[in-house]
Amino acid sequence: MSKPSPRLYVEASLDAGAAVAASEGQAHYLLHVMRAGAGTLVKLFNGRDGEWEATLSLPAKKRVQFDVTRQTRPQTPMPDLWLAFAPVKRIEFLAEKASELGVAELQPVFTRHTDITRVNVERLRANATEAAEQCERLTVPTVHEPVSFERLIAAWPKDRRLYVLDETGGGIPIAAALTVHEPAGFLTGPEGGFAQSELDALRQLPFVTAVGVGPRILRAETAALAAVACWQALLGDWSGKDWAPRN
Amino acid sequence: MSKPSPRLYVEASLDAGAAVAASEGQAHYLLHVMRAGAGTLVKLFNGRDGEWEATLSLPAKKRVQFDVTRQTRPQTPMPDLWLAFAPVKRIEFLAEKASELGVAELQPVFTRHTDITRVNVERLRANATEAAEQCERLTVPTVHEPVSFERLIAAWPKDRRLYVLDETGGGIPIAAALTVHEPAGFLTGPEGGFAQSELDALRQLPFVTAVGVGPRILRAETAALAAVACWQALLGDWSGKDWAPRN
Repeated sequence: MSKPSPRLYVEASLDAGAAVAASEGQAHYLLHVMRAGAGTLVKLFNGRDGEWEATLSLPAKKRVQFDVTRQTRPQTPMPDLWLAFAPVKRIEFLAEKASELGVAELQPVFTRHTDITRVNVERLRANATEAAEQCERLTVPTVHEPVSFERLIAAWPKDRRLYVLDETGGGIPIAAALTVHEPAGFLTGPEGGFAQSELDALRQLPFVTAVGVGPRILRAETAALAAVACWQALLGDWSGKDWAPRN
Repeated sequence: MSKPSPRLYVEASLDAGAAVAASEGQAHYLLHVMRAGAGTLVKLFNGRDGEWEATLSLPAKKRVQFDVTRQTRPQTPMPDLWLAFAPVKRIEFLAEKASELGVAELQPVFTRHTDITRVNVERLRANATEAAEQCERLTVPTVHEPVSFERLIAAWPKDRRLYVLDETGGGIPIAAALTVHEPAGFLTGPEGGFAQSELDALRQLPFVTAVGVGPRILRAETAALAAVACWQALLGDWSGKDWAPRN
């Protein structure tokens, strides 16, 4: 099989005739990893203008440019699912898989038992972008700066359902919970679980539903990805039915 | 929080008063990684006799023994879901996550576009066992020796539904497919996808259903885990309903 064209996310506007400068990282990847040269076809997307074909050109030393030629796909809506998660050891894996599975927004949350104290948001954005490039998404998920648990629930939109992955076994089975088309997000805890005070606070919020993913104790990142897969299958763009698009 | 007891899979029978020898790997892990000593409480399971508490003892130099005291959980049935998959780069990750998600049998399959030519089955068993120990399963998934694609479909039980993850977009939405309680398994292809001849052969088999997991191109391991999560949520032991147990 022939190799598919490199597919890259850019920030610039895309239109026939546009000339878009490659980032330093993209230039390195194309020239030294892919061994691409002038004339190589690439695909570009920016989250707004659909997907475009472009031709690589080298207008000057150390300058790599994309000459945009034609649109290959129009911009189409994406499901508007959020994922809030306590940072875990495999946080980069989580960002990558969440991007593939079609999460729109990623929100790291520091809970009481979260061991990790610093999140490299730029690194997560790179993981999410690379996954979006590979899986043919037309957008890149938004990765927010971390917030505290208290801030997350104070700022959570009241009209958006917050499904909490409840590892204590108190949640309702996830498929039974995912029946209503409404704005939604998931929250997963850290390796050590939520603190009792956090679970108590969550249970009092009218927009929170505690859900369960079976009798085994899943790692935090496994629970998050399993939950997102179930949402996409039942309510999102895997369902073959109407779903709430991102505006 | 106090650390949970180490939880280990053993092959020996478990009963009150039994003395079980630790494997070399377990002895190393307990003494040198966990820094455990005589008297440390551990939990043991063997896939048949439930979960038991035991006390570590050191009856002789370089011998680590588990003195079994009391049953902490009876053996309970597990869903009988199979996962057949073309080996991919992240095969160890796949074995680990499939074990957490409750897959009963793992079957590597060499398809026409599979790049990987050798599978370290012992390594996969170790990944699956470690995940089972951590996620509180009472069984370890069976990891079979690899087979060819032709052998897989020739030997597949005619009364077991084979859901094929169809990356060409021709499958029915996964949630729409997972409606019948029956023996089942999934099949996922390699990074390069199934060959056309393989897809054609699959489509002619009465026990095959091609399913889709949305418009994005998921990596093979992501598709496999998403599919297993959906099955558990809709038909397996996450559903809170009756499900087909493993005999």
